[in-house]
Amino acid sequence: MNERLKQITHWIKKTDTDLALILSPANLFYLSRFECDPHERLIGLFIFPDQEPFFICPRLEESRLIASGWEYEIIGYEDSDNPWDQVEQALKKRSSRPYKKIAVEKESLSFARAESLLNCSPKAHLISITEELNRLRAVKDREEIQILKEAAQWADYGVKCGIEALTEGCTELEVVAQIEYELKKKGIREMSFSTMVLFGEHSGDPHGTPGTRRLKRGDLVLFDLGVVLNGYCSDITRTVAFGGISEEKKAIYNTVLQAEQAALNCCRPGTALKEIDHAARKVIEKAGYGSHFPHRVGHGLGVEVHEAPSIHNQNENLLMENMTFTVEPGIYIPQLGGVRIEDDVLVTKEGIELLTQFSKELQIIE
Amino acid sequence: MNERLKQITHWIKKTDTDLALILSPANLFYLSRFECDPHERLIGLFIFPDQEPFFICPRLEESRLIASGWEYEIIGYEDSDNPWDQVEQALKKRSSRPYKKIAVEKESLSFARAESLLNCSPKAHLISITEELNRLRAVKDREEIQILKEAAQWADYGVKCGIEALTEGCTELEVVAQIEYELKKKGIREMSFSTMVLFGEHSGDPHGTPGTRRLKRGDLVLFDLGVVLNGYCSDITRTVAFGGISEEKKAIYNTVLQAEQAALNCCRPGTALKEIDHAARKVIEKAGYGSHFPHRVGHGLGVEVHEAPSIHNQNENLLMENMTFTVEPGIYIPQLGGVRIEDDVLVTKEGIELLTQFSKELQIIE
Repeated sequence: MNERLKQITHWIKKTDTDLALILSPANLFYLSRFECDPHERLIGLFIFPDQEPFFICPRLEESRLIASGWEYEIIGYEDSDNPWDQVEQALKKRSSRPYKKIAVEKESLSFARAESLLNCSPKAHLISITEELNRLRAVKDREEIQILKEAAQWADYGVKCGIEALTEGCTELEVVAQIEYELKKKGIREMSFSTMVLFGEHSGDPHGTPGTRRLKRGDLVLFDLGVVLNGYCSDITRTVAFGGISEEKKAIYNTVLQAEQAALNCCRPGTALKEIDHAARKVIEKAGYGSHFPHRVGHGLGVEVHEAPSIHNQNENLLMENMTFTVEPGIYIPQLGGVRIEDDVLVTKEGIELLTQFSKELQIIE
Repeated sequence: MNERLKQITHWIKKTDTDLALILSPANLFYLSRFECDPHERLIGLFIFPDQEPFFICPRLEESRLIASGWEYEIIGYEDSDNPWDQVEQALKKRSSRPYKKIAVEKESLSFARAESLLNCSPKAHLISITEELNRLRAVKDREEIQILKEAAQWADYGVKCGIEALTEGCTELEVVAQIEYELKKKGIREMSFSTMVLFGEHSGDPHGTPGTRRLKRGDLVLFDLGVVLNGYCSDITRTVAFGGISEEKKAIYNTVLQAEQAALNCCRPGTALKEIDHAARKVIEKAGYGSHFPHRVGHGLGVEVHEAPSIHNQNENLLMENMTFTVEPGIYIPQLGGVRIEDDVLVTKEGIELLTQFSKELQIIE
């Protein structure tokens, strides 16, 4: 049994839990290395305190599950089966007594599946396993850090490709296409989210989507992108100027850069997460843009591009060595444009190491 | 109020429901035209029998929600807020009596959010709104059909680009990159799922993922791809031969082609969905490949690439005019290769119209 499955089994025993059910692709991958995209189909990992775990999955996924290294039982089902019938039988086979305490991912387990599970074990009380999995996942091991570093380098490369693709009159989507093309040609299978390239006033919308807006001189250009590499995500944002930009845009850029640096400067083991947000926010508020920074300063990064911990101004938890997360302050002015600068950060013994390393000096692309 | 919101409000009244909560991006888009990607953040639409609906969303999404045409109340919140506090207040403001019957999307509502909702309304009983929304969504209106047709044409174009990209020694991912590049250059923002290009024995895995396998003469090449256009999905599969292929591979190809045609031939208003699966399966079983067709014959297609109805061999529901769905039988032989042929289909008054139109004759690419 792998180390992570052992740790969860240990937690199950320690908390007197009778059964844990894992359904989210991220946690399935974390615990078993099986990468899946189940859509509406049930793919579940059942873990017991004193018995071997089993997987249930569509018959057509069985071979991939075995290839990923799964050594225990697999219950396969057809599209026309109700897989919960098989779950019920399997659970009965393993214990004649009712399951009383079942740990589930409350944030992602659907209410319908909770009902199906409770049909199989009517006396069960559902508790949350999410916090324990988040706690394990937040602190990365050496292998994970190595992959995250490499994923971040690919994000750097994506920004480089994006900048090289900028020509007057090109559209945002053309630049998106060029970035993803260059990455896939190099063997990257998947972006960690829809690549964002925003020109001019579009960059002033913190969640804008790329379209057919054409690039003009004097535009800010915001890139927000990342890749999935061996199951781990990167996430970088850089903003550049296409041609000379106004003094106001330069002032916004420099404010965001200072805010990001202030946030990075306070990161080390023991820093309260809210302090990282405060550090960036203070710089932006002092410059008079407080109301234009409408989001938290960052988020954990790993198997998911947004994972625990959430780095917002109320989170009192502390940074720990080998956590990885983003720092990404921004200022967004409607009609004018926006600037965000985002790095992927690893907490080291005494401070941090930046995983993304693309230059942050204001670049004027001519 | 738009027609769809009116229909759901009517259903809410008719079923004596006090409140409906919609959280899934697909149904939010269907009911409001607001496209969102909430990640872990709460974006919810609350609909009442006798009062105006409201949205709750992160503050930074408000401007996009307004731009999408939402005319009623929006409750915005910050990352550091607990949005359920605001939900509780808003619900209290609208009714001093407890909400007893609340309709939710049981398949996608998380157990944690169900608990939060029940904290706001401790006396509530949760019923499912999914079937009603699926019923509405399965039958498309004229505007939706027009978009789905266009989305299918882009899928055809994607296959064309993929075939043109095939050269001896190229990798699967290079072909994926080329397809997506050509589509994005033309303004397509998003694929409807990860583009699949599988060479040789990889095509023998019904859920394989593209990698660095290089193309050889005699390989089958399977393309499975689709785009999202104005919120609607397409989904096509074509299999071609790179250079001459063995007689066995040709026999498999022709069996799948006949199976697909048999399935299409029985589609018209009133056909039981299971009959479509049976028609294809019978051809494949007769040819001796029954155990190599491990999935249902198709699925509904619309706002989601997999949506209701599921076209499997037990579904007794009937086809109705203006439903759109896929027909996609396949045969997969480990080590050798696989063939799948998939079309997007619209049910017309008397039969069907194929939305995807790329040729299905066996193509030998030289």
